[in-house]
Amino acid sequence: MPSQEQLLGVVQAYVDAFDKGDVDAVVALFSENATVEDPVGTPPKRGLAEIRSFYAGSMATGAKLELLGAPRCAADYVAFPFTVSLDWQGRWQVIEVIDTFRLDDSGRITEMRAFFGPANITSA
Amino acid sequence: MPSQEQLLGVVQAYVDAFDKGDVDAVVALFSENATVEDPVGTPPKRGLAEIRSFYAGSMATGAKLELLGAPRCAADYVAFPFTVSLDWQGRWQVIEVIDTFRLDDSGRITEMRAFFGPANITSA
Repeated sequence: MPSQEQLLGVVQAYVDAFDKGDVDAVVALFSENATVEDPVGTPPKRGLAEIRSFYAGSMATGAKLELLGAPRCAADYVAFPFTVSLDWQGRWQVIEVIDTFRLDDSGRITEMRAFFGPANITSA
Repeated sequence: MPSQEQLLGVVQAYVDAFDKGDVDAVVALFSENATVEDPVGTPPKRGLAEIRSFYAGSMATGAKLELLGAPRCAADYVAFPFTVSLDWQGRWQVIEVIDTFRLDDSGRITEMRAFFGPANITSA
């Protein structure tokens, strides 16, 4: 079971990687066969190649993350509310999201799910 | 697939049921074979009898819920951050939680998961 320190550390490292636009840093947080379902309801990205491609695309929008309150650690999961601000089709948008990460014993993310929908997107 | 109106309506009905301490109203939101994993990592309550018993216990603490920002609707899920305030062992406590609900086509909850841990509990 990952520790609370590992769970919180991964969330902070994830936010920091976006701040730096560092695709390698974000990919390094995932385990080899991890899945990324972003948003929930879409086909998951599977494995590090697909995950890298997905985050390279996200970071190309200049997306920055800001936590909204404390991450919630429960067993091997952490859930956290945040905003993502990004340039989408020439307009600056802010999206309110909740992500859940599941970590393995080594502290790597095995499953990421992002909960948001059209009603959570506002133009800044 | 449940509509956004159904997803948001169930979240509001859930908060309202706690406001009234109405166990019947909260149980009516769940499907017959629903699971409630609260907190995540504990054995799920399964079916309406176990769910009723669980919520009767929760409401006996006087627990009240307050949403923190917009619920996030994604496909057949809704995730929402909130605080629960309750009388726990003679002390008033506030817990920051994120719940996820999954709904069936009729708009009933089939799966509820509550994400929080000791670090999310503060004494008021």
